Amino acid sequence: MNRRTVIFISDGTGITAETLGNGLLSQFAGIELRPVRFPFMDSLEKADACLLRIDEIRRQDGVRPLVFMTLMKEEISKRLRTADALFLDLFEAFISPLEQELGQRSTHSVGRSHGQERHEYARRIAAMNFALAHDDGISAADLKNADVILVGVSRCGKTPTSLYLSLQFGLMAANYPLIPEDFDRDSLPQPLLPFRDKLYGLTISPEQLHRIREERRPHSHYASLANCRLEVAAAESLMRRTGIAWFDMTSRSIEEMAVHLMQAINKGREENGS
Amino acid sequence: MNRRTVIFISDGTGITAETLGNGLLSQFAGIELRPVRFPFMDSLEKADACLLRIDEIRRQDGVRPLVFMTLMKEEISKRLRTADALFLDLFEAFISPLEQELGQRSTHSVGRSHGQERHEYARRIAAMNFALAHDDGISAADLKNADVILVGVSRCGKTPTSLYLSLQFGLMAANYPLIPEDFDRDSLPQPLLPFRDKLYGLTISPEQLHRIREERRPHSHYASLANCRLEVAAAESLMRRTGIAWFDMTSRSIEEMAVHLMQAINKGREENGS
Repeated sequence: MNRRTVIFISDGTGITAETLGNGLLSQFAGIELRPVRFPFMDSLEKADACLLRIDEIRRQDGVRPLVFMTLMKEEISKRLRTADALFLDLFEAFISPLEQELGQRSTHSVGRSHGQERHEYARRIAAMNFALAHDDGISAADLKNADVILVGVSRCGKTPTSLYLSLQFGLMAANYPLIPEDFDRDSLPQPLLPFRDKLYGLTISPEQLHRIREERRPHSHYASLANCRLEVAAAESLMRRTGIAWFDMTSRSIEEMAVHLMQAINKGREENGS
Repeated sequence: MNRRTVIFISDGTGITAETLGNGLLSQFAGIELRPVRFPFMDSLEKADACLLRIDEIRRQDGVRPLVFMTLMKEEISKRLRTADALFLDLFEAFISPLEQELGQRSTHSVGRSHGQERHEYARRIAAMNFALAHDDGISAADLKNADVILVGVSRCGKTPTSLYLSLQFGLMAANYPLIPEDFDRDSLPQPLLPFRDKLYGLTISPEQLHRIREERRPHSHYASLANCRLEVAAAESLMRRTGIAWFDMTSRSIEEMAVHLMQAINKGREENGS
């Protein structure tokens, strides 16, 4: 097995560098990767300490490490580049074509304005508080302030999707369960009826729902495959009949589901002219 | 004002392309950007529809759009590149130096193995359920299973940080408030004493805490600046005396705080040899 150390260096959290680096490296089979992270690289002192560590890794591994960098400040990236490593600089590669296209020099400054960050932070925290206060139908108050209301059977993935939409995108996301009483009545929960244009459904394969519910309440009627089949079929039939667009969580990650929903919400808004 | 359309194209969610693109474009002042997103670009049919849209934008704007792409499949990126736009291909730029360094060809395949994704999904959902069940000291059961327990005064940012650590990194993150009774007793909450090595503190400036609490309970003693000053000072003194490492949320985003904590936790584990 080919073993390589992969180093992620950023003046921010390094999450982008790591996600992109992992995406690229997933294209190479049979290589065992050891990740080492240097986030918040914002001074020459930190760069010097990092240089020593890269040299050490180079000697221990007997092969040069792979370094993914997102650094705005040229003096820091220049200093780091003196090490013996393969540098993949995610900013450097694109700044120069962008400068040419936009007809202006880049500012090489770190981060956005402080005021904007604070505003963005407050918006996401407010959205998270909304998602927590409107999780699993806890409260039907303030639903008029929701950007989106997710519906679906218990344990189909409504909570993680709502929280991700709020934390990542600052969206006010409520969620409401569809339960056997709704299926008996064959109608959506009463409190949701005024908000039809904000409703999106989630569904999941009965087999996967069964596995998830078994972990929570083993050997229960609630978790049985037969009951999961009935509930999923009833929920999908109710959503179909009431014209609610729905998405299948079965083979999607939380991020993927969140982005599918964002697309649907934006499209819905465009069509409603709002 | 210079107006440009910036297009994000990805075979996944496009979150990485957008984050990196926004980071790069924040280096250019005075340009008003209009984002257009094409996630899940996984077929030539979708590429052809996208091509038409790029042409339309090109004509409407009177200037070519900027396109950030993360696409594994060459045939799709090749087809898109026939449009009149500035293409910044986040994969293409680095695949070839990586192929040379690693001495092998990339597979140009989309995504990780399905099994791994499912495992990762289950881990993050379990972590999120743990974070919700252990939010704000709701439950002291199972704290032995926590990877980290955050402590701090009410509304200092423990909940969003715990949820982010769980959803993004799959970490089992509990959080526990430090309340006036703890300061009177001048000791940590009893249930936390067995888990000293998992405790990390959050703090915040009294002014910012005051603003946050005012929104929740206007004109209350709880939200008053004087009380916020007392609580923050008492919490920091308690953490200092009991040797708990703590971080200041005041000018940090949720992601930044989460990454600082990840670093501290990993370092703590290395030092404990676990």
